[in-house]
Amino acid sequence: MPPPLITLTTDFGIQDHFVGVMKGVIYGICPEAQIVDLSHSVEPFHIVQAAFLVSQSWRYFPPGTVHVVVVDPGVGSSRRALLAGCDNQFFVGPDNGVLSTIYRSVREPIVRTLTNTSYFLQTVSATFHGRDVFAPVAAHLAKGAAPDSFGDTIDDYVLGYWDQPQRISRRVWSGTVLHVDRFGNLITNFPVEEFASLQLRGFELSIGTRRLERLVNNYAEGSGDEPFLVFGSSNLLEIAVNQGNAGKLLGCGVGSPCELQIY
Amino acid sequence: MPPPLITLTTDFGIQDHFVGVMKGVIYGICPEAQIVDLSHSVEPFHIVQAAFLVSQSWRYFPPGTVHVVVVDPGVGSSRRALLAGCDNQFFVGPDNGVLSTIYRSVREPIVRTLTNTSYFLQTVSATFHGRDVFAPVAAHLAKGAAPDSFGDTIDDYVLGYWDQPQRISRRVWSGTVLHVDRFGNLITNFPVEEFASLQLRGFELSIGTRRLERLVNNYAEGSGDEPFLVFGSSNLLEIAVNQGNAGKLLGCGVGSPCELQIY
Amino acid sequence: MPPPLITLTTDFGIQDHFVGVMKGVIYGICPEAQIVDLSHSVEPFHIVQAAFLVSQSWRYFPPGTVHVVVVDPGVGSSRRALLAGCDNQFFVGPDNGVLSTIYRSVREPIVRTLTNTSYFLQTVSATFHGRDVFAPVAAHLAKGAAPDSFGDTIDDYVLGYWDQPQRISRRVWSGTVLHVDRFGNLITNFPVEEFASLQLRGFELSIGTRRLERLVNNYAEGSGDEPFLVFGSSNLLEIAVNQGNAGKLLGCGVGSPCELQIY
Repeated sequence: MPPPLITLTTDFGIQDHFVGVMKGVIYGICPEAQIVDLSHSVEPFHIVQAAFLVSQSWRYFPPGTVHVVVVDPGVGSSRRALLAGCDNQFFVGPDNGVLSTIYRSVREPIVRTLTNTSYFLQTVSATFHGRDVFAPVAAHLAKGAAPDSFGDTIDDYVLGYWDQPQRISRRVWSGTVLHVDRFGNLITNFPVEEFASLQLRGFELSIGTRRLERLVNNYAEGSGDEPFLVFGSSNLLEIAVNQGNAGKLLGCGVGSPCELQIY
Repeated sequence: MPPPLITLTTDFGIQDHFVGVMKGVIYGICPEAQIVDLSHSVEPFHIVQAAFLVSQSWRYFPPGTVHVVVVDPGVGSSRRALLAGCDNQFFVGPDNGVLSTIYRSVREPIVRTLTNTSYFLQTVSATFHGRDVFAPVAAHLAKGAAPDSFGDTIDDYVLGYWDQPQRISRRVWSGTVLHVDRFGNLITNFPVEEFASLQLRGFELSIGTRRLERLVNNYAEGSGDEPFLVFGSSNLLEIAVNQGNAGKLLGCGVGSPCELQIY
Repeated sequence: MPPPLITLTTDFGIQDHFVGVMKGVIYGICPEAQIVDLSHSVEPFHIVQAAFLVSQSWRYFPPGTVHVVVVDPGVGSSRRALLAGCDNQFFVGPDNGVLSTIYRSVREPIVRTLTNTSYFLQTVSATFHGRDVFAPVAAHLAKGAAPDSFGDTIDDYVLGYWDQPQRISRRVWSGTVLHVDRFGNLITNFPVEEFASLQLRGFELSIGTRRLERLVNNYAEGSGDEPFLVFGSSNLLEIAVNQGNAGKLLGCGVGSPCELQIY
């Protein structure tokens, strides 16, 4: 039996002790687990960014991996906590839509509410379900507890569509920035498969106070301080500046709106 | 036998190779260890902050965990190195008071000086005891070496009281900032159990150039740019700004003094 | 059999999902591996800095460790990918000289090109060989695949000399900044063993717009805002400011040139 694998994605940062405490709870229940940090640098409360990071990553993990996603602005409210099974992997997190992209990418997600409190820490705080609910649930699951022992299946889980551009008129789509990478590139939600014809047809993308009309094949083709568009490694339209920081230049970040007009 | 667990808390940051080297030393001695980073973002030399982070975390780890705490301004001097046993967990670090909060929270800490140099790396530098002393000692302990083989017990270890407010007159206590969290909230050393009556009696907290008179129940109750007080998840009085960064606004950080007057 | 050990050194940062994805690939192939992050804060594309970090660290790891070094400005071009065996440890990375310091520090490095694509992920992208080539190769090696099954040995691998000062006239050497540590100290490539006589003979080091003439024994001897020189724990000449940030003060960073004149 290989050691069970658990990934963590949160907006906790790494300067505080929160992530370490979650790992303490996990190892206390499932000492043989391997834990991988996907990212703890999600902008506080930015569900779209966490969804992006997990959806870009999970298929590179082996079957049976448990992904814990804690970006949870509604902690302490009545929002439900979930365990989802998707293509032989598991996802644990709040029912706020953060798993929407994953639900849609599989044939039949099996989503359960976490109602069996015997899998939680004995005292559950109002503010730190990462420690009190999600970490212990992930650890029990990794240790072999049956998924159906955690709670009943539901089908009214929150399913967001923020990762999909909205068509607002015949030639205009509104989109959003899903992620800003280390280099300040703004990764939007316009996928290459739907918008590959941009170059041929001519277009204008508005973001912040700028209008961009240039699409290049790779970062090196950009020039000067001029922001440009490129289809990046995530197969999404990115806004970049050659050897510069597009996010800072444009004053935009995760969640910033943008609008794409195609001629 | 579950894999032994070792946590690391340092002021080394993560851009340098220091933390990785400590892990190399640990795995060379105890290959089956699991290592958890509690935090490496302790402000350089800020013993109070490391003490805070470890004291908030250790009880969430299973029995037998070895906690390595390396915030060590006196490295290379004659300050002693310690191994402390507290409630079935172990703590390894310099004798500079960084473990004070833990000593006081248990019935009978067993504190030893690390004098058995056969557990150290063969060459001990004057500057990097994290690598040369504390990592190998933690690894040998995790591997099963008996605590009493590391050195004799002592009872004159350094015991600081910085984590406790000092009463400086009948109605006035002086305190300090133990930690600044990711959001810039300043966590002071005023515990809720002793100062719960603040609201009822009226008070004034001075920090930097400001005097604060407002205590709220949760962050959302704050308004505008006005800093306010709240009892946070660590059960300590925090200074916060609603959706802002209190540390930057007040120009205060770890170790900043504050004064609380209760009417 | 102890669990196999793999270290990672990259310029990916930790806010994106790239490092987590590499770990997913590794665990999918070699579930029992232990993975250590050496650093992911290498300045983008700065080969000299990655070389410095790995060369300072690898000898503290046990025999058999696999070190993955992905700083790879030539990814997607025809640059080769390598597996090097040095003193019973292994190094996996691009053939861009990033392993030069290690090659030179051992008697007989055995360097192979990674030509056996059956050890790669099935689809190899043009942009992310960390995930598609280096992670799976390291995992297969850790799992026990024979080094000679990965490809043939070569002896025309890239061997850089940036880590060695160049003598440009009888009394003048040109050097470079290999690393900036957490405190902003600039670590140059002037080694103590060759330049120990500096103090005795008198010298001048030019960097940015400054000329430095003061060498001290430890950081505390520095005074005011004046940058000074010190032989640091890496046995290299460092430029530091007492309780200040030399990198910011001088406007210099990794790769900045400097010139040392000895009288």
